[in-house]
Amino acid sequence: MSTPTHQRHSFLTDFRSMSSFGSTTGGGVDRQAATAADGQTRNWFRGLVEGHDFTVRYDQVGNQFTLVELAPGAPYIAIGSHLDSQPFGGRFDGAYGVLAGAHAAMRVKEGLAGRDGAALFNIVVVNWFNEEGCRFKPSMMGSSVFTGKLSAEQVLTTTDPRGVTVREALESIGTIGDFSLDVAAYLEIHIEQGRSLEDDGLSIGLVESTWGANKYEFVVHGEQAHTGATVIADRSDALLGASCLVVAARDIANQFTTDDHMVITSCGEFTVFPNSPVVVANRVTLLVDVRSTDPSVLAAADAELHRRVNEIEESARVKIERGAEHIWAAKAYDAAGLKLAAASAERLGLQYGTVRTRAGHDSTNMKDIVPTIMLFVPSADGISHNEREFTSDEDMLAGVDLLTELAGRLVTGELVRPEPFRP
Amino acid sequence: MSTPTHQRHSFLTDFRSMSSFGSTTGGGVDRQAATAADGQTRNWFRGLVEGHDFTVRYDQVGNQFTLVELAPGAPYIAIGSHLDSQPFGGRFDGAYGVLAGAHAAMRVKEGLAGRDGAALFNIVVVNWFNEEGCRFKPSMMGSSVFTGKLSAEQVLTTTDPRGVTVREALESIGTIGDFSLDVAAYLEIHIEQGRSLEDDGLSIGLVESTWGANKYEFVVHGEQAHTGATVIADRSDALLGASCLVVAARDIANQFTTDDHMVITSCGEFTVFPNSPVVVANRVTLLVDVRSTDPSVLAAADAELHRRVNEIEESARVKIERGAEHIWAAKAYDAAGLKLAAASAERLGLQYGTVRTRAGHDSTNMKDIVPTIMLFVPSADGISHNEREFTSDEDMLAGVDLLTELAGRLVTGELVRPEPFRP
Repeated sequence: MSTPTHQRHSFLTDFRSMSSFGSTTGGGVDRQAATAADGQTRNWFRGLVEGHDFTVRYDQVGNQFTLVELAPGAPYIAIGSHLDSQPFGGRFDGAYGVLAGAHAAMRVKEGLAGRDGAALFNIVVVNWFNEEGCRFKPSMMGSSVFTGKLSAEQVLTTTDPRGVTVREALESIGTIGDFSLDVAAYLEIHIEQGRSLEDDGLSIGLVESTWGANKYEFVVHGEQAHTGATVIADRSDALLGASCLVVAARDIANQFTTDDHMVITSCGEFTVFPNSPVVVANRVTLLVDVRSTDPSVLAAADAELHRRVNEIEESARVKIERGAEHIWAAKAYDAAGLKLAAASAERLGLQYGTVRTRAGHDSTNMKDIVPTIMLFVPSADGISHNEREFTSDEDMLAGVDLLTELAGRLVTGELVRPEPFRP
Repeated sequence: MSTPTHQRHSFLTDFRSMSSFGSTTGGGVDRQAATAADGQTRNWFRGLVEGHDFTVRYDQVGNQFTLVELAPGAPYIAIGSHLDSQPFGGRFDGAYGVLAGAHAAMRVKEGLAGRDGAALFNIVVVNWFNEEGCRFKPSMMGSSVFTGKLSAEQVLTTTDPRGVTVREALESIGTIGDFSLDVAAYLEIHIEQGRSLEDDGLSIGLVESTWGANKYEFVVHGEQAHTGATVIADRSDALLGASCLVVAARDIANQFTTDDHMVITSCGEFTVFPNSPVVVANRVTLLVDVRSTDPSVLAAADAELHRRVNEIEESARVKIERGAEHIWAAKAYDAAGLKLAAASAERLGLQYGTVRTRAGHDSTNMKDIVPTIMLFVPSADGISHNEREFTSDEDMLAGVDLLTELAGRLVTGELVRPEPFRP
């Protein structure tokens, strides 16, 4: 079954328009959370869906809800992802899922026209606030508040590196409110950001579980000194200690990855103080994360990381302080949802397989409170968080088809039955 | 011979006043070049010397000249150092030398009162612009222009990380002009910033030569990617490559240092792009320097650094680009000046020894154009570029005494004879 021409055209046209907001010369976008570019994208999206008679509302932390009324008074099937991006990020990450959700909702609504009573739920398309976590930490902020994992107050008082709070930033782009709603199930589609679908020749991935991830903020403390005049024996160089930690993290990925289990380690943020040409650094803050599918492998790699931290404190003569940590255990997505997604993909004749996600997504939060289905479409060469991120039109359209099929099934009561509405 | 009480008191009082400009809570100062704090310190110094009937002028790159007329129309004996500091730097580095120069000039002028014709030279106390090189690169900017090693135009158009040019910054603090003058000899006193004087129980170091230093700006290029989703085999991580380079630089210091020759290596500035928590870095800029007393050891260590750079390009799958470089060969100070300084220290009964400087100073530039004497006073525990930098009152006062003795000798024609004045 292929997508009708007018629907293909409409989706791809909207995708191109959306990609112009915050666009970079390298073909990507830069739309960090609650910046002007993020605000412009949100306003464009609002205009798009209001043109289809959908209603837009914001909650207290800037999550953007597009309401599609199909069964007045009933709870909602949510379809979501995020419009914010990394600095110099790709145009598909997150944004594809939000736009796919809007088009799926349009098509489900059209399909239900004249079938009064068929819909047992309403649809809400959600653009979650600050999934990326680059300007404001942590990532997945909006869905974390929605699912009760973070308090709204804590989020609203979080500051960016220039001291601007989330509250101020959201007010400055005018996308904050006090809306809330009941959600019965959650759907999300996203680019894979890895190369397994491409390598296996598949167009759809059904996410069966998250990886486990241990994320740490470390502060390496040294002693500020002169880079020329201070002899090596007198140095306590925070930059050397932090560099050893980056090297150790990579060693651990190589050491613990086997044919059965992969371990991935990364340092994504690394800031040196005072960072002057002739000064030995007194402090480096850095983030280190360790991810694996297997809990026992993750635990062993994590123990090795902490052993190496102690070793570096000795060898580089620095102190390493462990700050905030975020630990996510590997966790399965809803089994009935996975089965329903497989049946739907088969009905549409799509080549699919099951995958696990190493990256965090808003569905990682949502799956803990409602039945959740997470879908992937391929990323060319696995490239992501990069201006060269790419997914073909055919793969994007196949994803919208599957999302539409699943949304249609959920709205009519497959997977979950509506509970009595709580006003 | 000990300093008379009123002169001790006057110097120490002025030193305390000076240290209040740009003072930090940790007991240091933060007066980066041409910032408001640097401007305030310059204005305070101007007021101080004008109170002694000296005249203050600025040249085209903001070098501050305090003119003390002793032999009208004759060239100048210059005594200089710098009032700018590192971020969260110490209160002695540079500033001690400028204030010591002003007090030496006052005492020489007093000593010559009533001895018409004794002075063959005038004195100028110089506060060189931007010796530190943290806000604007390279370091020793003002003395480099004065000695013809950099062009004024190149310096004036240099920008800080926020895009402000040197010209704009100097205009904003109002310390720029068009003055110039003839200098016949140069004197500088500075804290040692190492621990050799303290270890040897000396109060004065006579600097016999600089170390050789090879300074490189490297840019490590990787490929921006997702820290979770991108498998290790697909990564080209600029942060990993740069960290390997920091570790390699330290290895080289350890490998090439012998009982006879010390090698010092450092990375003082290290900046990661885009520096987001979940993004594999696409670029790191870093400065690496290698210093040694011995030219052949320095050459060998340098060759090893470049071999390691090539090795890291392979092992970390990154590209390493070599940008600007600054190469200073180890070079001796004026032998006659060293002898004169030793004789003067002996006359004052000071415990002195010869030392070599690993750090760059404005005298490093000046020694290439005129006979130059460079003196060190001890740094407690060798600590410098640090708020805890410390030199005792006694050591500071002994330094002022020796500087006064030398300035008096130079002004009356020892070391250099005045050439006919060129108008």
